[in-house]
Amino acid sequence: MPGKALLMIPGPTPVPEAVLRALSQPMINHRGPEYATLQRDVLAGVREVYHTHGDVLIFTASGTGGLEASVVNTLSPGDPVLAVTIGAFGERYAQIAAAYGANVRRLDVPWGRAAAPEAVSEALRRNPEVCAVLLTHNETSTGVLNDLPALARVIRERAPEALILVDSISGVLAAPLETDAWDLDVVVAGSQKAWMTPPGLTFLSVSERAWQANRTAKMPRFYFDFARTRQWLKKDQTPFTPAVSLLFGLREALRLILAEGVDATIRRHIRLARAVRAGVAALGLALFAETGRESNAVTAVRAPAGIAPRALRRVLRERHHVITAGGPGSLESEIFRIGHLGYVSEGDVLATLAALEMTLAALGRTAPAGAGVAAAEGVFAEPSEAEA
Amino acid sequence: MPGKALLMIPGPTPVPEAVLRALSQPMINHRGPEYATLQRDVLAGVREVYHTHGDVLIFTASGTGGLEASVVNTLSPGDPVLAVTIGAFGERYAQIAAAYGANVRRLDVPWGRAAAPEAVSEALRRNPEVCAVLLTHNETSTGVLNDLPALARVIRERAPEALILVDSISGVLAAPLETDAWDLDVVVAGSQKAWMTPPGLTFLSVSERAWQANRTAKMPRFYFDFARTRQWLKKDQTPFTPAVSLLFGLREALRLILAEGVDATIRRHIRLARAVRAGVAALGLALFAETGRESNAVTAVRAPAGIAPRALRRVLRERHHVITAGGPGSLESEIFRIGHLGYVSEGDVLATLAALEMTLAALGRTAPAGAGVAAAEGVFAEPSEAEA
Repeated sequence: MPGKALLMIPGPTPVPEAVLRALSQPMINHRGPEYATLQRDVLAGVREVYHTHGDVLIFTASGTGGLEASVVNTLSPGDPVLAVTIGAFGERYAQIAAAYGANVRRLDVPWGRAAAPEAVSEALRRNPEVCAVLLTHNETSTGVLNDLPALARVIRERAPEALILVDSISGVLAAPLETDAWDLDVVVAGSQKAWMTPPGLTFLSVSERAWQANRTAKMPRFYFDFARTRQWLKKDQTPFTPAVSLLFGLREALRLILAEGVDATIRRHIRLARAVRAGVAALGLALFAETGRESNAVTAVRAPAGIAPRALRRVLRERHHVITAGGPGSLESEIFRIGHLGYVSEGDVLATLAALEMTLAALGRTAPAGAGVAAAEGVFAEPSEAEA
Repeated sequence: MPGKALLMIPGPTPVPEAVLRALSQPMINHRGPEYATLQRDVLAGVREVYHTHGDVLIFTASGTGGLEASVVNTLSPGDPVLAVTIGAFGERYAQIAAAYGANVRRLDVPWGRAAAPEAVSEALRRNPEVCAVLLTHNETSTGVLNDLPALARVIRERAPEALILVDSISGVLAAPLETDAWDLDVVVAGSQKAWMTPPGLTFLSVSERAWQANRTAKMPRFYFDFARTRQWLKKDQTPFTPAVSLLFGLREALRLILAEGVDATIRRHIRLARAVRAGVAALGLALFAETGRESNAVTAVRAPAGIAPRALRRVLRERHHVITAGGPGSLESEIFRIGHLGYVSEGDVLATLAALEMTLAALGRTAPAGAGVAAAEGVFAEPSEAEA
């Protein structure tokens, strides 16, 4: 048998059979009535997931395209912005703003840690003129979940008019998100994360404050233009030909997600993440993320002394067909990352931990066989919230 | 039976079963070896179709994203460019350049006509400082095919160093394209046209001259950045998560296209287009495109006097399940468009012409029944070049 792979990376994530099948529907006219229904259905689902009554836009692009869209539609060259970076993707968000001429002030948090609300508050006190704050919800590169509601609160206290632009590409559905209640202006997501859909679509919520900013935002844009996209939204269309097949898939994925329930989906992610962390700890491995702010979507694990993460990942892949992710940049020699978002089951987590145990043993590290799996079983034996 | 639809629009186009099925393959790691093979295979196929030995880049986006990429990676704000517009998509290309601050000089050709090489030569004589010319290969909105090799020749005579940027989104594979031999600098294509693949991918060839220009091009960019994309190309990856499922589909579509042969695919398009034109003429309808420059991909037809194109298209759709496209902008009340590119057969063309005959009769226009189909049959009865 060829390797039956377990895709445990933080995106693209495994896609359910029903969604894969939905991709294969015959092509339709993107200016016809069938498409209009498709787009309406999908956007209603995305709004429900986002907990927003505002506009949600959809673009054919990777999540990075969505980040770019959030910047170029709300800012002008020279605008002072505060980029709160806690890892590689926060870094990318800052780079995008700089590439389009924003005056980027930075609050660089050491990788592995979350942004402290007091530090953000202090940064805004020192930079009262910033008109936007760039935040990462879940930092995929380090496995850290920011305390988004707390950060949004201090931003609203210090800078009531500042835009809050949020990279939640790997956050939405893996962690709570209350777009309207937390007063977030643009929240960017990507189809290939907890949405159980292949990559190629990015979604953005746009608040009234963001639309207001859009009216005077002078950064150049065309493909990602919000205003043009909103015009076509009235006809349930997009200005440019959308990735129809991916929207077919997303509609099916949203059906599955809404049947499970948005809150239940988030609780499932929390539970899986707890099991992974318990298993890893039982194997004597340390986490990269600060305690209490670990991601529900991806766990960054420090490789044991004397074992290169790359070697460990190779055994996991070649011997056990478990696909994991490396660390970003210079962290490649220190950590590896286990993704557990989207269509991932308790069984997948248990199999991954078992493979990790065997891999560590093969690499000469003695750990009590079954310890990691047993620890995860302990988490899974707890009644789920629905049962409790 | 619910309507078995015939999708006769100039994109998205019908997708073969094998390609639809290929979309449904399980997700893979976009940083792993399987993906590297996929990207290598696909780019080799695209290069073969383009007749280029240069670089080809791929972005997750609609074709319009590709047009934007061609501009922002090769130009700086203030750069004088000549936009040769012959329809709505040429207009869009000019708008993109203007949105990013290019100094756009225009050669506006009346819609329905092709650009005369002498007119382009004269425009360059009057504007010797232009550093790029924006051309449309096949103008989807009006059904006109520009004489791309002739245009490229006069540009090279007048402005040897100017970049030739080409929108060939609906041109590639429906009309001859010799990227290297015609010395074209960037040629933009889109997966949902003659490539028989769903929408969501755009391809761009990049000449040495374009790479040279890229070094000093100052228009802001991030998602669509050529240089960053080329860096990752060395690892057979993209900088940002690509639409893996669509690449699975494209690989299968390229297999079908290369099995048929690039030249044979183009000849098929020419043959289908001739049959459509013969059929339409036999029904007494006039074409919108100038004689001799009609597109092989889409035929723009003038609605007969007294019949609104919208009404005609509604009968075609509701009674016969043949989906056609309207005219762009103010032409909506004058023309309708029949797409015949990609996975379209002689049978599809015959059925469309038959439906058009019945529609005209239903709308009170007398035409000899079967005349349109008979005329198309006449074209199909000619030996194909392969048989001749």
